Amino acid sequence: MQRLTLALDAMGGDSGPPVVVPAAKQALENYPYLTLRLIGDREQLIPLIHHYHLEDETRLSIVHTVQMIAPEDKPLKILRTRRNSSMGLSLQMVADGEADACVSAGHTGALVALSHAILKVLPGIERPALVSSIPNRRGRQTLMLDLGANSTCSSHLLHQFALMGMVLVQTLWHINNPKIALLNIGSESIKGNDAIRQAGRLLTQTSSLNYQGFIEGNQIFDGDVDVIVSDGFSGNIALKTAEGTAEFLLYSFRKMLPQSPLKRFIMTWLMPNFQRQLSQLTPQKHNGACMLGLRGVVIKSHGRADSEAFFQAISEALVQSQLNIPQLIGQQIPKFLSEIG
Amino acid sequence: MQRLTLALDAMGGDSGPPVVVPAAKQALENYPYLTLRLIGDREQLIPLIHHYHLEDETRLSIVHTVQMIAPEDKPLKILRTRRNSSMGLSLQMVADGEADACVSAGHTGALVALSHAILKVLPGIERPALVSSIPNRRGRQTLMLDLGANSTCSSHLLHQFALMGMVLVQTLWHINNPKIALLNIGSESIKGNDAIRQAGRLLTQTSSLNYQGFIEGNQIFDGDVDVIVSDGFSGNIALKTAEGTAEFLLYSFRKMLPQSPLKRFIMTWLMPNFQRQLSQLTPQKHNGACMLGLRGVVIKSHGRADSEAFFQAISEALVQSQLNIPQLIGQQIPKFLSEIG
Repeated sequence: MQRLTLALDAMGGDSGPPVVVPAAKQALENYPYLTLRLIGDREQLIPLIHHYHLEDETRLSIVHTVQMIAPEDKPLKILRTRRNSSMGLSLQMVADGEADACVSAGHTGALVALSHAILKVLPGIERPALVSSIPNRRGRQTLMLDLGANSTCSSHLLHQFALMGMVLVQTLWHINNPKIALLNIGSESIKGNDAIRQAGRLLTQTSSLNYQGFIEGNQIFDGDVDVIVSDGFSGNIALKTAEGTAEFLLYSFRKMLPQSPLKRFIMTWLMPNFQRQLSQLTPQKHNGACMLGLRGVVIKSHGRADSEAFFQAISEALVQSQLNIPQLIGQQIPKFLSEIG
Repeated sequence: MQRLTLALDAMGGDSGPPVVVPAAKQALENYPYLTLRLIGDREQLIPLIHHYHLEDETRLSIVHTVQMIAPEDKPLKILRTRRNSSMGLSLQMVADGEADACVSAGHTGALVALSHAILKVLPGIERPALVSSIPNRRGRQTLMLDLGANSTCSSHLLHQFALMGMVLVQTLWHINNPKIALLNIGSESIKGNDAIRQAGRLLTQTSSLNYQGFIEGNQIFDGDVDVIVSDGFSGNIALKTAEGTAEFLLYSFRKMLPQSPLKRFIMTWLMPNFQRQLSQLTPQKHNGACMLGLRGVVIKSHGRADSEAFFQAISEALVQSQLNIPQLIGQQIPKFLSEIG
């Protein structure tokens, strides 16, 4: 297996090092061809490295920085003054070829701004998109993008997202002619805003793309399509509402328990099954969104991810590096874009 | 009890008369002070009226029309040529004072266009909003608007929606100083697009309004706020995604059953409880959105509503008529709007 080096932003997310270090340990144990660089505050990292008995691990090293990104930092400030943050340095290592990919649980706005500035976008792509997958009724996955990198999107940007989604699904899941839809508030061609209607026309014109039209929020789990494209605002609302609904239903379900002691006992026995189903929709367990459209692999871990979920994000970074996803997108997109002139 | 007359669009929704007529029967039985006008095709309605033994019911009458609205009809065409549709005539009866409110399961775009044109908006309100409520973790309801009447919204329109939501919650649920939030893709003030950030500033300036800031999609069921304001595009995506998630989880849950005969038996026994929880989120059972901001009560039934759900929509129309919701909004909004100059 080809040796790979990953840069892990050790300070991002709600928990930072206490989540990243055990995830790193799990990754080193599972992937013998992997080398990890932890980018962050040495003072916080070294005690954890000792705690997890990683002090003699030659495939693990620290790149020290204490610069932090605050949730309130605006993109312009981040670009001017946060390039030496743990996130900025992680991305720089990918740009410089010192790492094959990076993983960060830091906040999305900063990751979009810094990855765009440091790694740059691929030819034909105007902006990177945040991409993830959700489970569907057919027992498979559906890819969704953009999930929050761009709160407004032009029709051309939506069209680029559709093309990137197609390449990713073809490569990751071996689906030859993936079905693509736009998320809208109705299925008729007159529904939605100007950008989405115009994107629908661009997708129809791209004959090599299997465009299926608009779908609504209640259809995203149906599995009728392989890729769902939306602007980052409504995509983010959809994904987080799905998370919130799953958590609310689990909560409601638990609240039902005390009604009868017998039912309570039985439900507790049945619960693990149901929780497994729900966990497909909760970010603590299901993880590994990526920033697509960049000249390098960037995996966005959820801010609330636990170490098991951060490990999943690392695994996703490995898969995308091994498959050379950025190179494939860079090669294929320009020829599709030429179809719409 | 004050006598009330409702105009029911008998042709709207996926099913039309077979859903509306039994719902009308249930309403007449439950509300002795109620008179109903069924607006629609006499040929289709009379057999159903006989079937439900309503031929001698003096509180029920038909207003005949065969004009229909097609899903593909654009707003301009609807306004020019569909005023005598069952939906148009229902709204006209409210405008003319022949009915106290109307209920339609017809499509949202047509209802927005026709209600705006026929009933007109209240002073200070630029456009009507589609409003509904969702259950929350605290065992109460949260009001959400706009759910799809306006796919793009200015900051001023979002501000007007917040004010209308406040009046509705105060009046319907007797909450004195309801908490109001904007649906966004992050909680920090820099998140989202220009319209939502500017709406946040307008809401902060309105001192009589209990504005709580931004919330994200995963928080909509938490019950931390009473009113969630969004543009119609993301509000619609959120509500329908919640429906889709509930339906997907119910489906996944059923799929688990066959694994073991004992568990299968037990789950079937437990299912009614769980289905009751889920049904709070499915439109077939939970119904009665309204169009707020108009000079009259307009209730929007879900297109997939069954007759029980259509009956709920009728009940909602009665409540809003009795409470004079449009008049209250018309009186109160202008003084709040003066706070932002």
